[in-house]
Amino acid sequence: MKSFPLKPRFSETDAIGHINNTSIAVWFETARLEFLTDVFIEKGDEQPNWFMASQTIDYLGENFFGIEVRMDLSVIHIGNTSFKVGCKMYQNDKQTVRASAVLVHVDRASKKPTPIPPQMRAVLEAELDSNWL
Amino acid sequence: MKSFPLKPRFSETDAIGHINNTSIAVWFETARLEFLTDVFIEKGDEQPNWFMASQTIDYLGENFFGIEVRMDLSVIHIGNTSFKVGCKMYQNDKQTVRASAVLVHVDRASKKPTPIPPQMRAVLEAELDSNWL
Amino acid sequence: MKSFPLKPRFSETDAIGHINNTSIAVWFETARLEFLTDVFIEKGDEQPNWFMASQTIDYLGENFFGIEVRMDLSVIHIGNTSFKVGCKMYQNDKQTVRASAVLVHVDRASKKPTPIPPQMRAVLEAELDSNWL
Amino acid sequence: MKSFPLKPRFSETDAIGHINNTSIAVWFETARLEFLTDVFIEKGDEQPNWFMASQTIDYLGENFFGIEVRMDLSVIHIGNTSFKVGCKMYQNDKQTVRASAVLVHVDRASKKPTPIPPQMRAVLEAELDSNWL
Repeated sequence: MKSFPLKPRFSETDAIGHINNTSIAVWFETARLEFLTDVFIEKGDEQPNWFMASQTIDYLGENFFGIEVRMDLSVIHIGNTSFKVGCKMYQNDKQTVRASAVLVHVDRASKKPTPIPPQMRAVLEAELDSNWL
Repeated sequence: MKSFPLKPRFSETDAIGHINNTSIAVWFETARLEFLTDVFIEKGDEQPNWFMASQTIDYLGENFFGIEVRMDLSVIHIGNTSFKVGCKMYQNDKQTVRASAVLVHVDRASKKPTPIPPQMRAVLEAELDSNWL
Repeated sequence: MKSFPLKPRFSETDAIGHINNTSIAVWFETARLEFLTDVFIEKGDEQPNWFMASQTIDYLGENFFGIEVRMDLSVIHIGNTSFKVGCKMYQNDKQTVRASAVLVHVDRASKKPTPIPPQMRAVLEAELDSNWL
Repeated sequence: MKSFPLKPRFSETDAIGHINNTSIAVWFETARLEFLTDVFIEKGDEQPNWFMASQTIDYLGENFFGIEVRMDLSVIHIGNTSFKVGCKMYQNDKQTVRASAVLVHVDRASKKPTPIPPQMRAVLEAELDSNWL
C-alpha cells in the first residue's frame, strides 16, 4: 500500500459547500498515475500502456476544501489482461471515499488487450492486497 | 427514458487527445440533474433531497471534442430509501459510456436516509426500465 | 458579432454558491473556439493556427447554475501577427462578464508568430467591432 | 514575496498535449487563497471578505504534466477599496505565466466595496512589491 497526499483546489468545491463528486474522480486519477509511476519506476521498468475500462466510486462522507487528503492505493485484483487498483481517501483520518478502477494492459502497436507479462505481473503482485475492502 | 444533448468543452480533453475519463463524471452529473428536474417538475412535485452514495462508469469507447453527445437516462432500480439511475452516452450513435449512480433519499431535517414516499415512488416507477443493461 | 448559448454544469459552481471564477475561463474558451470555427469555416478557409498569448476577464456580476448563458463574440482589434477577440456574457439579459484574449497567428512549421495573411485579415475585418467596450 | 508549490493534475492537460489555459486560472486561484490565508493568519487577523473584480493571465510558455510548478505571489498595487495581487509561475525555473488579479474589499453586511482599513492596509504593504513586472 502506498499513500499520496493531495491539496483540494477551491474550484473543486460546488454550491452545496463541499467537494463536488466529480472532483473525486480527478483526485483518484491523480493518485492512480502517481501510484503506477512509483510501482513501475521503482522496479526500473518502463510504464506499461494501461487503458481504464471502468471505475466505481463509493461516497462514504463529504470532503471539504482546506483539509489535506490522504489517498491509500493498493492492487486489489490481478486478472489475465487487466488488474484492479483500489483507493481509500481520508480527511483528518476519517475515510470519505472508497474507489476502484479496472486497468487493461493494451499493446501499443495493436491497441488490443494483451496478457500481462510475467515480470509486470510480479511487480503488481508485490502490491497486491487480496483482502482490500 | 429521456435523452439529453451535450457539447464537450475543449478543456475536458486531455493529453491523450480524447475526453478525459473524469469529464465523463461531469457529463453524467449534468444529465442526472436535468433528468431529475424533468421527472419531478413534470409531475408538479418539489425536487426531493438526494445524496449520491455511489457511481460506476464503464468506458466502452473514447469520446472526442467537436462531436455532440447524446445521453439516455432511465431509472433502473428502485429500493426502499434509494434508487439507481442509468446513463448511456453516444457520439455519432456509437455507445461510448455506460454509467449508473445510486441516489439515496435523505430527509432535509435529520439528514438521514428515509424511505421514498409512495407518490415519489410512483414518479420513479413511471421511468423504470427493469431490463437496462 | 456572433452569439453562442451555453448551459452551466453543476460542477462549475463553487462553495460560495455561484459559478466559480475559473469556469468563466472555460466558457470563454468554449465560445472562442466555436466563434473561430464559424468565422473561418463560413469562408471556406482552413482553421489557422492560433496561440493564446493573454486573456483578461472582468467579473461584472455573479453567474448561477440553472440559467442559460449567452456569449456575444467580436473581433475587437487586429494587429500585424495577432488579433483580439472580445466576449460579453449574459444571464437573463444582464451582463455578468467582459473578457478578451489576444490570439497570435503561429506558423505551423516554424512555430513562430507570423503576419496574418491578407485573406485571413479580411475574414477577421468582417467581424471587427472597433467600438467594443 | 511568497512561494507555493503545486502538482499539475493529469485532467488539467488538453488535447494539444500541454496544460490547458483554463487550468492556469485554477492554479492562480489556489495560490491566491493560500497567499491570502498566509498573509492574514500570520498577523493574527481574520480573513477579510474579498471579491475578485478582474484577472489577467499572460501565457509566456507552455506548462506540462509531471513537473512541479512554483508560484511566486506578491501584492503589486494597493488602492482605496482594492488591491492587486501578482503571480509568476515557473516549471524547472523557467517562467511560464504572469498573472494578476484585482481583489475588492467588500463589507460583509452591505456587500459593497469598502475602504481597506489601516491595519489591513499595513498587512498588505508588508507584502508590496512596487516594481513587479
